Amino acid sequence: MTGHFRDTFPPLDWWVHPTGPNNLITDVSGVSVGHYTHNTGDTARTGVTAILPHNGDLFDRPVHAASAVLNGFGKSAGLVQLDELGEIETPIILTNTFAVGDCSKALTKRAIRANPKIGRKMPTVNPLVLECNDGVVNDIQAYHVTDEMVDFAIDHASANFAQGTVGAGTGMKTFGFAGGIGSASRIVKLQDKTKYNLGALVLSNFGQKSELRVMGKKLSAFDHACPDVVDKGSIIIVLATNAPLDSRQLGRVCKRSGAALGRLGSFWGHQSGDIAVAFSTANSHSRSDNIRYDAVRLSENCMNEFFHASVEAVEEAVLNALWFGRASNGYDGKKLPEFCALFEQ
Amino acid sequence: MTGHFRDTFPPLDWWVHPTGPNNLITDVSGVSVGHYTHNTGDTARTGVTAILPHNGDLFDRPVHAASAVLNGFGKSAGLVQLDELGEIETPIILTNTFAVGDCSKALTKRAIRANPKIGRKMPTVNPLVLECNDGVVNDIQAYHVTDEMVDFAIDHASANFAQGTVGAGTGMKTFGFAGGIGSASRIVKLQDKTKYNLGALVLSNFGQKSELRVMGKKLSAFDHACPDVVDKGSIIIVLATNAPLDSRQLGRVCKRSGAALGRLGSFWGHQSGDIAVAFSTANSHSRSDNIRYDAVRLSENCMNEFFHASVEAVEEAVLNALWFGRASNGYDGKKLPEFCALFEQ
Amino acid sequence: MTGHFRDTFPPLDWWVHPTGPNNLITDVSGVSVGHYTHNTGDTARTGVTAILPHNGDLFDRPVHAASAVLNGFGKSAGLVQLDELGEIETPIILTNTFAVGDCSKALTKRAIRANPKIGRKMPTVNPLVLECNDGVVNDIQAYHVTDEMVDFAIDHASANFAQGTVGAGTGMKTFGFAGGIGSASRIVKLQDKTKYNLGALVLSNFGQKSELRVMGKKLSAFDHACPDVVDKGSIIIVLATNAPLDSRQLGRVCKRSGAALGRLGSFWGHQSGDIAVAFSTANSHSRSDNIRYDAVRLSENCMNEFFHASVEAVEEAVLNALWFGRASNGYDGKKLPEFCALFEQ
Amino acid sequence: MTGHFRDTFPPLDWWVHPTGPNNLITDVSGVSVGHYTHNTGDTARTGVTAILPHNGDLFDRPVHAASAVLNGFGKSAGLVQLDELGEIETPIILTNTFAVGDCSKALTKRAIRANPKIGRKMPTVNPLVLECNDGVVNDIQAYHVTDEMVDFAIDHASANFAQGTVGAGTGMKTFGFAGGIGSASRIVKLQDKTKYNLGALVLSNFGQKSELRVMGKKLSAFDHACPDVVDKGSIIIVLATNAPLDSRQLGRVCKRSGAALGRLGSFWGHQSGDIAVAFSTANSHSRSDNIRYDAVRLSENCMNEFFHASVEAVEEAVLNALWFGRASNGYDGKKLPEFCALFEQ
Repeated sequence: MTGHFRDTFPPLDWWVHPTGPNNLITDVSGVSVGHYTHNTGDTARTGVTAILPHNGDLFDRPVHAASAVLNGFGKSAGLVQLDELGEIETPIILTNTFAVGDCSKALTKRAIRANPKIGRKMPTVNPLVLECNDGVVNDIQAYHVTDEMVDFAIDHASANFAQGTVGAGTGMKTFGFAGGIGSASRIVKLQDKTKYNLGALVLSNFGQKSELRVMGKKLSAFDHACPDVVDKGSIIIVLATNAPLDSRQLGRVCKRSGAALGRLGSFWGHQSGDIAVAFSTANSHSRSDNIRYDAVRLSENCMNEFFHASVEAVEEAVLNALWFGRASNGYDGKKLPEFCALFEQ
Repeated sequence: MTGHFRDTFPPLDWWVHPTGPNNLITDVSGVSVGHYTHNTGDTARTGVTAILPHNGDLFDRPVHAASAVLNGFGKSAGLVQLDELGEIETPIILTNTFAVGDCSKALTKRAIRANPKIGRKMPTVNPLVLECNDGVVNDIQAYHVTDEMVDFAIDHASANFAQGTVGAGTGMKTFGFAGGIGSASRIVKLQDKTKYNLGALVLSNFGQKSELRVMGKKLSAFDHACPDVVDKGSIIIVLATNAPLDSRQLGRVCKRSGAALGRLGSFWGHQSGDIAVAFSTANSHSRSDNIRYDAVRLSENCMNEFFHASVEAVEEAVLNALWFGRASNGYDGKKLPEFCALFEQ
Repeated sequence: MTGHFRDTFPPLDWWVHPTGPNNLITDVSGVSVGHYTHNTGDTARTGVTAILPHNGDLFDRPVHAASAVLNGFGKSAGLVQLDELGEIETPIILTNTFAVGDCSKALTKRAIRANPKIGRKMPTVNPLVLECNDGVVNDIQAYHVTDEMVDFAIDHASANFAQGTVGAGTGMKTFGFAGGIGSASRIVKLQDKTKYNLGALVLSNFGQKSELRVMGKKLSAFDHACPDVVDKGSIIIVLATNAPLDSRQLGRVCKRSGAALGRLGSFWGHQSGDIAVAFSTANSHSRSDNIRYDAVRLSENCMNEFFHASVEAVEEAVLNALWFGRASNGYDGKKLPEFCALFEQ
Repeated sequence: MTGHFRDTFPPLDWWVHPTGPNNLITDVSGVSVGHYTHNTGDTARTGVTAILPHNGDLFDRPVHAASAVLNGFGKSAGLVQLDELGEIETPIILTNTFAVGDCSKALTKRAIRANPKIGRKMPTVNPLVLECNDGVVNDIQAYHVTDEMVDFAIDHASANFAQGTVGAGTGMKTFGFAGGIGSASRIVKLQDKTKYNLGALVLSNFGQKSELRVMGKKLSAFDHACPDVVDKGSIIIVLATNAPLDSRQLGRVCKRSGAALGRLGSFWGHQSGDIAVAFSTANSHSRSDNIRYDAVRLSENCMNEFFHASVEAVEEAVLNALWFGRASNGYDGKKLPEFCALFEQ
């Protein structure tokens, strides 16, 4: 099946805010995304997805950021310092649970290549690696992910990128279906007509099939066939905006991802690492500006629009992860069906 | 219109967990609820709702508890100590925003009447008062709520109680409609066939009409008539269970209320105090057991059922608050329409 | 005994950062402090202390702020919203535990007088009231504190103010001694020679006598006479600066108060509400600037100086609260001795 | 210099609670500690320290636990899940900043060896790795730490272990001096005469020399010689007890470490990951008890004793880390002097 989710499910009145030009997180100018898909046909169905807040040196010029742990049954790395300092200083890497250590090391090495004094004359770097467990179809004990895959994903990051069963999403399962990586974006228009972009990218690996709501309809409206399995998955949500939100405001945006999960039918299952990270590309400054700098701030009165837009972007990003997922056969025989096949004719 | 929400909207496959016998928070044994409704026809459309975790001396025998602040634009009192000690030691009072101070004082005085040494030979007491702003139809500057109303609500608490535009819900507005107070409950059945009750009571005062989803359908499916207003409201969620959850586990349950708000169409609007409080009636012990006591603990593996049940109970409690709301004329001419009138024939 | 703590205990090398001109929180320009001392000789030994971040309309022009709950065994009001929005929009009121409700109401009424649309056409206001329990010498069940006392304290706020057993500190007990209110300030000098002021004011009611360290010496070096009592007290810490710290950075400053308590010999006793609040007078803007505004930000690299200065200011503020305390006879016969009497000749 | 810190600095009245039999964290029965010290004489001055809450299978039988992030400028792994579930399910590994990824992987592999279904039929495991930056004398870019070192430290864990410049402490710097690993313990005696042990182990790498207080005296009382350097370090604090504290109570204990740092003269410097983790060996149960289990709980009234004891244990653990440190020459010529040499004759 070709086309987008919206071709089959027209927006009707479900969505309020318009999408950005490509309905991708990269509608936020400067943001790029790259994948390394590792699907060998034997035990590997995994990969790496990199999100770059900008293409410069993030260690020298970090972005303002925040996180929200909706459910902390997860092994992501880098959140403690992100929360303390309110900034992200490496590309954001998404991968499988057991690859967090290796990906952290790969990010550190990469930062050292750009700034050889890191850990010597300069402080250490805080690698940000977020994960879900693709163990249903990928043998995570095989530790497939390597430094090179991280570098590849970062080096190939661009404004255009694939969704579904690609990159870190290769082995993921969403509401019982294959997929993965999804993205969406919204335009936020303020009272004075200023427009900002807000985009979401998810690594989606959560949800109990019988609970899925597609634009409000339970899946049973479409399909009763597949067996249901208790939700044991996770979701990582990355939000980007060019609006000048500070870290506290970005934290408020992060939390709203929980409403999007609710709209999709999730109850934030127990065995799940549901974590959102948000950053702003605005007000960035070099660390060598080491005393003070000027910033623009948005009044709190504007936040409602960002909250609403972020809930829509996250909800649609998950639906896109479902839509673009392609059926997958697991390393030990489990199969993940294709969501969009339900709607083919 | 008579009957319940479920009479008009049959459960179909929307809900998974069965309700308790009365579909009320008081299905949790020992819990009681009382109202004082203050609707004078001039400036007052407000009141007090009291939830009693048990009918004994809560200062001597507090209940294990937790809270979650989904959105902190609110003025509730007592949460700092609740979070530190993981317990509730007074009845829970719901009221309007400006009445928090007076209700706190009323709770303190009441605790002193039961334990005259409080603040003298004994520590002070931590009154728990949660609020929403009923200023759309009630003149909150008039400070209508009194000590007597708090005492009345507590003294008249019982297992049966009214919903909708009553008690603290008298002047509240939910997704543009009148109401209020709503409740629902679920039975949680564990693998070993043990059953527990989990109930929710909401003081609902949130939501943007155009965003409401009733069991997945946007309201536009039923009604286009009323003007839409930006969400500036709040919601207080009280959850009760007889399952032996400790305060950390209750905190995890609290957070899931955010998923329920998402299912209803809320994006946790900016100007909103969205706060959940949960308590367990199990493992209670007297403060005079001042060294150690025995407790039963539930394995974390059981939590999924409580999470799912709590999301359903909160969602249905809000729908009940809508359903039982009766049209209200505000002190300065604003009118809040009746939700269930949309479905009359 | 006349003079300051520093007259008897010269700074030696204990302190590193220089004090501001008056060694008071009001060294931060625009900040003022007022007291109402209520000591009737019968049951009342209590009062109110007001800290005004600036003399304008705080509801229209809130200040950036943060809080840290070191120990949450306390009943302060207003912290939930302060944390969510990162701002303070009323004077900060310090008082006794049972007076929180009445002082909240007094602040709300005062805000309405300045902005009559609050709670009608405008949102409600978030009164910030922090408390300690002066029940050792004051009969808090008598509810001595009134609206008028709150207004008096605010109306009489100035750059000069008394310390010790005054205002909210009238009935407080610090490490077994009378007092109270203390203050101190530091000058923070950054690498580029810019100077900022940082001031602390404490409502001190904590500490176990045998654990007190005065500039590193346990009190036993000076005095063995008085009986020791288990620490059941609290401390409220208010920090002010004119440096352009944002709410996240102010939160980091708040937490360091815990180090100051450690230097004084406290182990943050169980039955204690140890709460710090910090605000910056910089980057303030009117709410009617409702889209965006310009701000200056300080690089995180500068934070060390503020942390160090805040620890010193809080430590010395508590020592000043001790130093300026005057012996007090409680309503039921308990006596609080005078700290500085130990050093008289 | 031989002997202990206490031989040269007699306790006098500085400490209140008695130490356990060996004044080590391993005074808590079942706890063991192992080191791998990697000091090659060229670029490596680093290592691994393992703390085992018990000698059984921690994945099957996790211990109740909590953490407190005093200052989050750090890269530790495993805290998100620890906070969510309130338990530790692997040995606790301490190491250098850049070794976190490799040590996480080593812990995961080890858990898989014990439970081959992890990540396949069973959930993934949450490796707990805490770090400080030993980059002053160790070349962390060389990535010296290996799987084998982690296994060695765990396999050689015992009740007796060395302190100072050993294991993860090999390259650490405390208040300008070499060292490292320190430990201490206290006996907590409750009102009913029950006794519990509480122990601390620190990986100490923080503090500005001029600010150090040794039992209340600034170091200038002993030594003016060495140059002072701004505090850029970190401290990891591990607390263990056999008292039946639940995760909320353990979290309260964790936070008190901040008071201990204050007593030592720290202001919790900006560039520091100051993190405390606490666990209880009581109430442990197998995951295969998957519905409910019995637990003993301690009344909150007992907490004061644990707070006081933990502050003392952490303070003395840092002093022991200093005391047992041996002078170190860094890979690029920097030297860390020996603290105890100041007191030799």
